[in-house]
Amino acid sequence: MKEYCGIFGIYNNPNAAYYTYLGLYALQHRGQESAGIATTDGKKMRYYKDFGLVSSVFKGEILKNLKGYVAVGHNRYSTSGASDSIDNVQPIVVSYKHGQMAIAHNGNLVNALNLREKLEEEGSIFRGTSDSEVIVHLIVKSKKKKFLEKLMDALAKLEGAYSLLVMTNKKLIAIRDPWGFRPLSMGELDGSPVFASETCAFDLIGAKYIRDIEPGEVLLIENGEIKSYQIPKKSSKKSQCIFEFVYFARPDSKIFKRSVYEVRKEFGKRLARENPVEADVVIPVPDSGVVPALGYSQESKIPFEMGLIRNHYVGRTFIKPQQQMRDIGVKVKLNPIPEVIRGKRVVVIDDSIVRGTTSKKIVRMIREAGAKEVHMRISSPPTKWPCYFGIDTPTKEQLIASSSSLDEICKHIEADSLGYLSLEGMLEAAGGSKEEFCTACFDGDYPVEIPEGIIKQAKKE
Amino acid sequence: MKEYCGIFGIYNNPNAAYYTYLGLYALQHRGQESAGIATTDGKKMRYYKDFGLVSSVFKGEILKNLKGYVAVGHNRYSTSGASDSIDNVQPIVVSYKHGQMAIAHNGNLVNALNLREKLEEEGSIFRGTSDSEVIVHLIVKSKKKKFLEKLMDALAKLEGAYSLLVMTNKKLIAIRDPWGFRPLSMGELDGSPVFASETCAFDLIGAKYIRDIEPGEVLLIENGEIKSYQIPKKSSKKSQCIFEFVYFARPDSKIFKRSVYEVRKEFGKRLARENPVEADVVIPVPDSGVVPALGYSQESKIPFEMGLIRNHYVGRTFIKPQQQMRDIGVKVKLNPIPEVIRGKRVVVIDDSIVRGTTSKKIVRMIREAGAKEVHMRISSPPTKWPCYFGIDTPTKEQLIASSSSLDEICKHIEADSLGYLSLEGMLEAAGGSKEEFCTACFDGDYPVEIPEGIIKQAKKE
Amino acid sequence: MKEYCGIFGIYNNPNAAYYTYLGLYALQHRGQESAGIATTDGKKMRYYKDFGLVSSVFKGEILKNLKGYVAVGHNRYSTSGASDSIDNVQPIVVSYKHGQMAIAHNGNLVNALNLREKLEEEGSIFRGTSDSEVIVHLIVKSKKKKFLEKLMDALAKLEGAYSLLVMTNKKLIAIRDPWGFRPLSMGELDGSPVFASETCAFDLIGAKYIRDIEPGEVLLIENGEIKSYQIPKKSSKKSQCIFEFVYFARPDSKIFKRSVYEVRKEFGKRLARENPVEADVVIPVPDSGVVPALGYSQESKIPFEMGLIRNHYVGRTFIKPQQQMRDIGVKVKLNPIPEVIRGKRVVVIDDSIVRGTTSKKIVRMIREAGAKEVHMRISSPPTKWPCYFGIDTPTKEQLIASSSSLDEICKHIEADSLGYLSLEGMLEAAGGSKEEFCTACFDGDYPVEIPEGIIKQAKKE
Amino acid sequence: MKEYCGIFGIYNNPNAAYYTYLGLYALQHRGQESAGIATTDGKKMRYYKDFGLVSSVFKGEILKNLKGYVAVGHNRYSTSGASDSIDNVQPIVVSYKHGQMAIAHNGNLVNALNLREKLEEEGSIFRGTSDSEVIVHLIVKSKKKKFLEKLMDALAKLEGAYSLLVMTNKKLIAIRDPWGFRPLSMGELDGSPVFASETCAFDLIGAKYIRDIEPGEVLLIENGEIKSYQIPKKSSKKSQCIFEFVYFARPDSKIFKRSVYEVRKEFGKRLARENPVEADVVIPVPDSGVVPALGYSQESKIPFEMGLIRNHYVGRTFIKPQQQMRDIGVKVKLNPIPEVIRGKRVVVIDDSIVRGTTSKKIVRMIREAGAKEVHMRISSPPTKWPCYFGIDTPTKEQLIASSSSLDEICKHIEADSLGYLSLEGMLEAAGGSKEEFCTACFDGDYPVEIPEGIIKQAKKE
Repeated sequence: MKEYCGIFGIYNNPNAAYYTYLGLYALQHRGQESAGIATTDGKKMRYYKDFGLVSSVFKGEILKNLKGYVAVGHNRYSTSGASDSIDNVQPIVVSYKHGQMAIAHNGNLVNALNLREKLEEEGSIFRGTSDSEVIVHLIVKSKKKKFLEKLMDALAKLEGAYSLLVMTNKKLIAIRDPWGFRPLSMGELDGSPVFASETCAFDLIGAKYIRDIEPGEVLLIENGEIKSYQIPKKSSKKSQCIFEFVYFARPDSKIFKRSVYEVRKEFGKRLARENPVEADVVIPVPDSGVVPALGYSQESKIPFEMGLIRNHYVGRTFIKPQQQMRDIGVKVKLNPIPEVIRGKRVVVIDDSIVRGTTSKKIVRMIREAGAKEVHMRISSPPTKWPCYFGIDTPTKEQLIASSSSLDEICKHIEADSLGYLSLEGMLEAAGGSKEEFCTACFDGDYPVEIPEGIIKQAKKE
Repeated sequence: MKEYCGIFGIYNNPNAAYYTYLGLYALQHRGQESAGIATTDGKKMRYYKDFGLVSSVFKGEILKNLKGYVAVGHNRYSTSGASDSIDNVQPIVVSYKHGQMAIAHNGNLVNALNLREKLEEEGSIFRGTSDSEVIVHLIVKSKKKKFLEKLMDALAKLEGAYSLLVMTNKKLIAIRDPWGFRPLSMGELDGSPVFASETCAFDLIGAKYIRDIEPGEVLLIENGEIKSYQIPKKSSKKSQCIFEFVYFARPDSKIFKRSVYEVRKEFGKRLARENPVEADVVIPVPDSGVVPALGYSQESKIPFEMGLIRNHYVGRTFIKPQQQMRDIGVKVKLNPIPEVIRGKRVVVIDDSIVRGTTSKKIVRMIREAGAKEVHMRISSPPTKWPCYFGIDTPTKEQLIASSSSLDEICKHIEADSLGYLSLEGMLEAAGGSKEEFCTACFDGDYPVEIPEGIIKQAKKE
Repeated sequence: MKEYCGIFGIYNNPNAAYYTYLGLYALQHRGQESAGIATTDGKKMRYYKDFGLVSSVFKGEILKNLKGYVAVGHNRYSTSGASDSIDNVQPIVVSYKHGQMAIAHNGNLVNALNLREKLEEEGSIFRGTSDSEVIVHLIVKSKKKKFLEKLMDALAKLEGAYSLLVMTNKKLIAIRDPWGFRPLSMGELDGSPVFASETCAFDLIGAKYIRDIEPGEVLLIENGEIKSYQIPKKSSKKSQCIFEFVYFARPDSKIFKRSVYEVRKEFGKRLARENPVEADVVIPVPDSGVVPALGYSQESKIPFEMGLIRNHYVGRTFIKPQQQMRDIGVKVKLNPIPEVIRGKRVVVIDDSIVRGTTSKKIVRMIREAGAKEVHMRISSPPTKWPCYFGIDTPTKEQLIASSSSLDEICKHIEADSLGYLSLEGMLEAAGGSKEEFCTACFDGDYPVEIPEGIIKQAKKE
Repeated sequence: MKEYCGIFGIYNNPNAAYYTYLGLYALQHRGQESAGIATTDGKKMRYYKDFGLVSSVFKGEILKNLKGYVAVGHNRYSTSGASDSIDNVQPIVVSYKHGQMAIAHNGNLVNALNLREKLEEEGSIFRGTSDSEVIVHLIVKSKKKKFLEKLMDALAKLEGAYSLLVMTNKKLIAIRDPWGFRPLSMGELDGSPVFASETCAFDLIGAKYIRDIEPGEVLLIENGEIKSYQIPKKSSKKSQCIFEFVYFARPDSKIFKRSVYEVRKEFGKRLARENPVEADVVIPVPDSGVVPALGYSQESKIPFEMGLIRNHYVGRTFIKPQQQMRDIGVKVKLNPIPEVIRGKRVVVIDDSIVRGTTSKKIVRMIREAGAKEVHMRISSPPTKWPCYFGIDTPTKEQLIASSSSLDEICKHIEADSLGYLSLEGMLEAAGGSKEEFCTACFDGDYPVEIPEGIIKQAKKE
């Protein structure tokens, strides 16, 4: 099971639960299946969590019952689908020897299975199947005395992605794994420290962005004091997920100290330089293709048009057509504007090609709308390797780019030409290098070794 | 009470209810408060309607129970809010002397109150408060013999906006008022005639656009035969709602025989020519400002950027902050990208200014994001007059442009400059003239006289 | 379509909506499918209605929005099931020439179809399919001038059962048809007149029972004054539904000036005298059999035991077993106590036998619990004729007693003996005669002629 | 936090989940706040649980997704109210060293806090606050090798009430604590062993009652084989909860090898002998008073009448009146029949008096209905001590009988006389002695020592 999440935390604020609600609202794009908030009044924790969007989970009086001055919240999407269990919904709140602890985790660990086996071997009992529960156990099991030491002890054992918010009845701790896979930022609202996966959550509540939690940083707040600690690193390389820039993060967020919008547009510009084409119009696949398409257009001087319109009312409850009816497919979400396509040589900008199925449908849709030529341009390199750190990519077998050449993919999706952004181009656009980013989904260069068990498990799902 | 609606109909199709569901789905932007579908199997009507989005009203088995080969559907938003009654939700299905009738109505009549009074005087009984019920009564009350004659008799009495779908157990009839206020198009799906407020509904179900129902046209289908009739017109002038182009319709629709996208972009181009400004970047207020902003950018050569990001998860159930908290306001929906704004002279494109409140917040938001100058450009003329034909504008008193000069508005919204599209520019951009469009909200030139009662009623709401 | 209902009204009380909610709560047994309340503040009506129990329809803020000092409410069950329409849910609120009117109706008219046809012929338009809408139309259509005259004019045309509450913005009117089929009582709460189908509603709100609305009485309240009028009667005979005593009313209610409990117990006593049997124990089929079983036991000196226990959590949402599983049938509701049955000669008291299916299951269940003999005793005569006045009986064809002899029924339900209360016994027990009660379901002696159309329609359902 | 629960289990049945649903349905009276079912197909567990009644938790497809041949289910009520957490809802499903385990627990442990502290001391992590989680931890923590040994090891540490169903992917185990506080029976359905808190669950699914799980018995089913083991006992005394007979169990159940109905009636008979009174009528407070009232009536020859009618539609969602309105109080549930009360000397039978508040309201209600005298008779001894084993009694301070004499209570509830069943009478009626039953709530003779911590905790709640 993989999970995609957004996390939010706030310290010492009379409206802790409500601001966390807002924060999760702004981070809704990071996980739409379940939501939860835990609060503490310094003595006792309260929490509520359920399946559903933030706005449907927290109705009526629920928010009012979540009293307290400190809060952590969590949005979640999981690959388990209908068989997902309420026990996996976060924050996970536990009580143990030294009191209560709530944890909100974004990211996937690669050694969770191993750790879990060892923990179970030593007697640990797990409620759910999420990686996150492992972290709680490691903290509690640590033989160190103080909470911070226990925490550091536990973190040292983790391999993989974890941006964490840990709350006790006295402390709030924000953590990013030493690789820095997932983003986590600190802000400030009327003197209250706040934390969020993306800065768009700060913008909504009117908080000021202060700085990123650094890879390997453990930032602890207690009695109003902020202290920073460091998880021992095995390497100085950072492995920040470059795919957050490509697709996952909101364009109005700042992550890894860079504006998602700016990076995403630069992807488009580089893509234009690397893969120029004679064409009449540049159109994005919304929403993630919009900003790179702007970049492509600005660089290539080919006019930008919103040639595909997205229906934002599409939700989970949509009743699918029965077999005898026509395929609705991608049309529920996207509709072309024939007037800007007809008779034109069209450059279509998408963020990535996964299985190739949707791309083929989009190319056909544009051609049926009258395009003379359809040139697909992708604002990232070919996705050839699965992600084990928190992005929803299928297995290697299902990734069309892992077994097909550029020409084969182009043919498969029925485009007139196909061009990807180069790995180098992407890294430069992101203002960094392989020393800063994880690019494993593109080059298979995993920053931590992926255990066989994880690979097998992923294939079974 | 005013209503904003989308309507859909289909004739002779084994999946009539499901395609109507899809059609309403595509037209969801035209009304989000209630939805309904009525079907007939040639002998008996079935219907279901409730408050809510299409996808939450039609769950589980409901759609399956709506058997039949002919269907009409309706999406609705009303200004009545919480005090709206289920009796106003459409389609209105009635039985009377000659059988059953279902009606789905888009538009507001201006003589509904008068007609209603007369009808009540003659003994008519009304369940709800919507204009649409008046139409049903007029049809039934007509002393003509045949259904079509009765219908024509009734329609001749109506003043104002009505795009109608009328279904009996044998007939489906599509109607547009002689002024042509609201759009209504005919398409074809596997031999089945289909009707929709906007062509985006055809695109989703894979239907082909055939033609518009013409202003004053009554198109009747019975026994598979299509016949067209004409409501007597008082004038050859058409009064198609130009505001559909400005704001209401989806950009991927074709209405009034023109592409909304094209017209909306042309608004932006003309706006640029009429109101040029030295600036560094053009940014739209999404979603309706996007296309005119593209036009403005293309014409002015000032780069286009998506400088404001919209959160599409915002729904009705959002819990508002309590008084002591900061104002969340427009930030729930919009968030600026400081990177494309900072230090820049910004042209902001919005479709209209109503009360001025939101515009002021947007200007402030952009300025706080670092803009050096903020130039507001509006892709329509100043909205000075209320609409009585189906667009949600407040009273004259509340429309800032009806009492304030350009300079005053500019000052009020705290912009560095403000420019509106001229009426002439707008009409030309829409490819027509005042002979074709209703421009009353801009110039007060109402195509039909507005009775005092209506004006008073609107003020009370 | 037949309907079974409870109605409640209150005049001049600051908590009109809330007391109506309570009243409907107490009357929930009279109709569990939908509920509605309409209120007036003297100028304007507000109303809310939906499918569901009273407690699930009126949640949260809904009750608070129903402002006003006068209210009428309605509980409803209909034989239409899933195809029932929201347009049939009461109170029906309409506006017409002289203002607004709300109507809550308990009972079925037998000439509704005829009246409806005539009304449609004259141009009337019906939203739903309920009889009650006909009444509204007749009132409005009347050529009389004053409301009361119009009302009297309309009532004079009705044949069948109607206990009515009619509310205008100034008046509240309580009406019982000249036959007096359905009950309707007046009470008083802190000076406010209240009306309810059964007096148990008065008990809950702490109101005092004043008197019954008399058959044919029209009791009008306006400006705080109460006046009583009389619908012209064709006969001095009353036709109060004796089945209300047998089954429908709550035992803690007083209807037709008699205690339901007392009458029901007297049924049991007479049953014991008319149909004695050597036996060891008397057990009721709960809930309606409990009181007559007490009577039977007291009269026969055979001990009474609660030998069948009812599960009160059974609701509409119960998931039925799939075909391969055992039949759950009546066991979801009833479970025997073997300890009071085993080896015993058991007298089982039920209120009636309809199709015979349930009775057979109950007899088997008791025998399987170890009864030596099972003697079924019914606290009413054989149900041979369908009811057209508001009791849910199936067609003549489905009523086992209409085609089978006592012996045949006894054999069919597998009882050792079977005995019914005699018609005379029942009438005497109810303290009256055929001059006071409708006994049509037992003797086919319908107090008003049943039109062919109604009989046919009932068969089709 | 105290919990009141019903549990059900089934082994080797193709419809395991559905029969568990039915079983929980029959046991709904034992816990109405949450429900859950876990199933196993021999390899993997599936489960679903949520707050609500059984019929509202398991809707639509949920039951179908619970595949497998073995299942355990749980109904629950908790004293935590709104602050109860989803983590406490059962069955608790965990994974640990040797696989998965699901546990459904009825009863309260008295050493749970101590055990929990020790477990936490040793590193255990708790999700919720329920006693039941402690059991899971003890099993897993045991140093024994085989599951059964671990289980026995764990059980040996528990003090207090536990009827348990433990499911692994291969085994189903039914357990009753050595005291035998809570009931648990075994039945058989088409060859499948079934288990339930009360036999009424067997009746509904058509299963045959086989025998009780004995106090201290551990009954294990694996590979279709049934084996029985014994938890070492400290004493031969049994401590079966006699209050199950008084109030909690359904009268159609058999628990502790005796019919609840028979025992409850015998309570009434003895009560009549011990506390005779000259009176005209015996009426029960329904539902729990009905059977003892029958006993009282039969013994005393004073006629039995259902003088108080209960409204079974009362649910959790009932909107309470606002302050200015009259007190609705007990009237929402109960309504008297004046006809059987007026002018009479009434004996009222209730199962117990807790705070005295409700009894006072009932006495008043009966007096207002016209009773000449009201004699309260209670079918159990005075409740003086709180229960720590699974019955919802308040603290000693709140129990009127713990500080008031018989006369004082009688005066407080405004009765003409008051009589309780004697402890001896109750024990004899239940066919046993103090060697068989726990009577702590009556005599303070707790079969296990109650730690201070538990008493304090109870007071705080």
